[in-house]
Amino acid sequence: MPAAISFEPLTPTAFLRRAAQVFGDRLGVIDADARFTYAQFLERNLKFAGALERLRVAPGDRVALLAGNSHVMLAGHYAVPFAGAVLVALNIRATAADIAYILDHAGCSVLIYDQQYEDTAVKAAEQANGAVRLIRAGGKRDELEPLIAAAEPHCVPVSDERGLLAINYTSGTTARPKGVMYHHRGAYLQALAMALHLQLTSDSVYLWTLPMFHCNGWCFSWGVTAAGAVHLCLPKLEPALIWRHIRESAVTHFCAAPTVLTMTIWDPEAAKGRPPRAVHIGTGGAPPTPTLLERLAELGMDITHLYGLTETFGPAVICDWRSEWRSLPLAQQARLKSRQGVGNVISTEVRVVDEGGKDVPADATTLGEIAIRGNNVMLGYYRDEEATRKAAPDGWFRTGDLGVMHPDGYVELRDRAKDIIISGGENISSVEVEQALASHPAVAECAVVAAPDEKWGEVPVAFVTLKPDASATGGELLEHVRAQLAPFKAPKRVLFGPLPKTATGKVQKGVLRAQLKQNG
Amino acid sequence: MPAAISFEPLTPTAFLRRAAQVFGDRLGVIDADARFTYAQFLERNLKFAGALERLRVAPGDRVALLAGNSHVMLAGHYAVPFAGAVLVALNIRATAADIAYILDHAGCSVLIYDQQYEDTAVKAAEQANGAVRLIRAGGKRDELEPLIAAAEPHCVPVSDERGLLAINYTSGTTARPKGVMYHHRGAYLQALAMALHLQLTSDSVYLWTLPMFHCNGWCFSWGVTAAGAVHLCLPKLEPALIWRHIRESAVTHFCAAPTVLTMTIWDPEAAKGRPPRAVHIGTGGAPPTPTLLERLAELGMDITHLYGLTETFGPAVICDWRSEWRSLPLAQQARLKSRQGVGNVISTEVRVVDEGGKDVPADATTLGEIAIRGNNVMLGYYRDEEATRKAAPDGWFRTGDLGVMHPDGYVELRDRAKDIIISGGENISSVEVEQALASHPAVAECAVVAAPDEKWGEVPVAFVTLKPDASATGGELLEHVRAQLAPFKAPKRVLFGPLPKTATGKVQKGVLRAQLKQNG
Repeated sequence: MPAAISFEPLTPTAFLRRAAQVFGDRLGVIDADARFTYAQFLERNLKFAGALERLRVAPGDRVALLAGNSHVMLAGHYAVPFAGAVLVALNIRATAADIAYILDHAGCSVLIYDQQYEDTAVKAAEQANGAVRLIRAGGKRDELEPLIAAAEPHCVPVSDERGLLAINYTSGTTARPKGVMYHHRGAYLQALAMALHLQLTSDSVYLWTLPMFHCNGWCFSWGVTAAGAVHLCLPKLEPALIWRHIRESAVTHFCAAPTVLTMTIWDPEAAKGRPPRAVHIGTGGAPPTPTLLERLAELGMDITHLYGLTETFGPAVICDWRSEWRSLPLAQQARLKSRQGVGNVISTEVRVVDEGGKDVPADATTLGEIAIRGNNVMLGYYRDEEATRKAAPDGWFRTGDLGVMHPDGYVELRDRAKDIIISGGENISSVEVEQALASHPAVAECAVVAAPDEKWGEVPVAFVTLKPDASATGGELLEHVRAQLAPFKAPKRVLFGPLPKTATGKVQKGVLRAQLKQNG
Repeated sequence: MPAAISFEPLTPTAFLRRAAQVFGDRLGVIDADARFTYAQFLERNLKFAGALERLRVAPGDRVALLAGNSHVMLAGHYAVPFAGAVLVALNIRATAADIAYILDHAGCSVLIYDQQYEDTAVKAAEQANGAVRLIRAGGKRDELEPLIAAAEPHCVPVSDERGLLAINYTSGTTARPKGVMYHHRGAYLQALAMALHLQLTSDSVYLWTLPMFHCNGWCFSWGVTAAGAVHLCLPKLEPALIWRHIRESAVTHFCAAPTVLTMTIWDPEAAKGRPPRAVHIGTGGAPPTPTLLERLAELGMDITHLYGLTETFGPAVICDWRSEWRSLPLAQQARLKSRQGVGNVISTEVRVVDEGGKDVPADATTLGEIAIRGNNVMLGYYRDEEATRKAAPDGWFRTGDLGVMHPDGYVELRDRAKDIIISGGENISSVEVEQALASHPAVAECAVVAAPDEKWGEVPVAFVTLKPDASATGGELLEHVRAQLAPFKAPKRVLFGPLPKTATGKVQKGVLRAQLKQNG
């Protein structure tokens, strides 16, 4: 019997073929006035692949895409692999210089860009050493649509499920961005895991708040399709717009960093009543605070805490929830939910290891580095064997995140290795101090970073954003922290104002540290 | 970077490792007074594997298990693969001669049996040519428990995910049983698909009505564990017992053939009110009738129609439901739900092909054979290359089931190739006639088979079981059928009485046909 009868290479584009067959005449993708049924979206992406072939994109070639959460970016997640090529989704907030570096490093022959990022795209192509064919998408001088319209459907079958599907560049703050290599198999399995854990069904409406260029939208770009749910594109991260969609488009799911959630749930629009359908949120990047959880409960929203990195296809780890925890006091629920959790259903076990690579005791106290391996780990860094070797010295990928293992097997992050504050020889977890600060009713969000200090080496300094109409002095906040933590952990200063953030809503602690150094 | 960092062989036993980590102190398996947390169940199965090793079961060896839906049978689904061996789950209704044949054909060195099947097990071992070590499980002279208790935990890592996991023997009615070879990868993916489609969560309670020895319980033996849900073992298929569990153990899911459902929903116990939690049922083997759907709706139960064969790890096909269909009249919903459907989320496309292997038109009329390939198709028949070749002449597994393709891509079975009735040169679908009969309010269940006929070659004959307290004459039923179908499709005779069934609740049409031949 030929192997084919019992073997089909795993590829996440298969979910679109199935959705087109099962839910062919149903809306699959909504992006303002652009609406595609799943059958249309498949047909279109096969022709998109044909257009790429006519642009001489060969199997294995890299195709860059610079766009927000649009139907074009989503299409790239199918059309580029259909062409046998490798998707390089670019951060819309990256500079032209960063993009030029990536275009050269990945060796992209084509850059498709949303017309609103034309300046950046054109500059990046000019600055790049290699020749890059620019394709404008959207607007009056749209070049992509005519190419798709003129093309024939095209598809290069996936021959190796561990072959290259996408390269996602990390947003290196100090070093050059690194190209994280995604394989078809990993994306397929991770997409299934996301659909299963967030209970996506063909009735779900998924709002694209999380950037698609970030870990391919945590693989929801494929997972939503696997469930046959609706992709609802969101062009801008505006709370009022999010609320309009939640109310008018009956959104059931979205993913966002806690900072985006914070800005959403304290928006005046939130006060206009509960959403029409139960909303399930996936969050990651920082643990949800008790205040956040309380507010979400008021709004009839449920939240799942996820954790992962670009290197792990997004959330390889999930704070898997137990129904019996629902009867606990909210503060205790928040404590449990602030833990990053356990490997998701398709992940291999998650470990916390010491410097020698041995498991630390599961005592919720001993700090170690979180280590991951399995089908949702990258193949390695593109064209960077040294970094690849360093990232997994013993076959386990080191996340660079420090954490503890709880006795029940749940992992909790204490800090990014680089975010730990070492004061007078003592380790201070910035996350711990932030949680203490965030529990003050006036605090909307905060970040604690190390400031250089002659006596102590480093001392913690807090940056705080207060809630609208709330007020508190630095002294009041410090008093609040000292009531909870050892005195040496309390920040030496409190600075008020908005926090600088990455495109994915993560606080840029590097920027804050630089600011402190500059100002002495 | 070593491949291990981004590659882990897929095996369904991984779900138990995860469940033991995440839901370790939660009940995972309930079998009357025997209760195991997931941590206990993992530990126990690792020791069970150690016991097998001490019995000299080597990697690749076949281990037979004869038990009903008990914790021992479920344990076999983990312990046998942990030992690196291959599970041969036996039908508890098989004869000693059948089992002896299977023991020899599979070359089983060990047969573990539930003590209530001791007669059959002992006879089978005596009749087998090869030496078989018998291990009694349960009762006062339990041999398995002391072996497990004395063993050390043991696990042979899976080196090849397409390696042999289980051999499931078909219940051949005319020919010898064939050994369907399951691979780890297929069982893993199929388990995820079942969990996703039936929306199993860690809050679910799964009642084991479907025999575990049937396609490894459609892979729910692993899928329920993947979700972290509770396995609730059901020793006997008694309606009153099913209802007791539904009410007292807050069952949320079970799977059953329509005949089992029929007997359950017309049981007096059903009249005692709706179940405490919404119950989601997976059914297969025959399409649910409108009467059945109506009754289930009254009882607050939802049903998903599944279709598959032993060769496809159970349900490779699902009648994926669309919310918009819920507003249709119930009869129309039943029509839609009676279709077998589309490939499940991990299946490759399902086809209906003519004798030359070409797709028939998607016109809901042209009859063809249903053909399947992909990751949830068997490796082949054990030690039967000829049958394997015949089953997939061109890389597509031929199911032996005849059906049509609807314009919307949904497949509908018309008949088993062998169940089609050829009368005067015309094909009569027994399923079509059965559906017409079943729509009569007095009919509980029915089967239509071919009787030899000198003039027509074959003629349809109906076997009918009426609902309790209902009455109808053969003439009334035939009138009811003739109002719906072409006259030549109406049965020539109607015989009343209970229907003979297989262990999985399928009507044994072969027995009915033999009965007709015998009685002239």
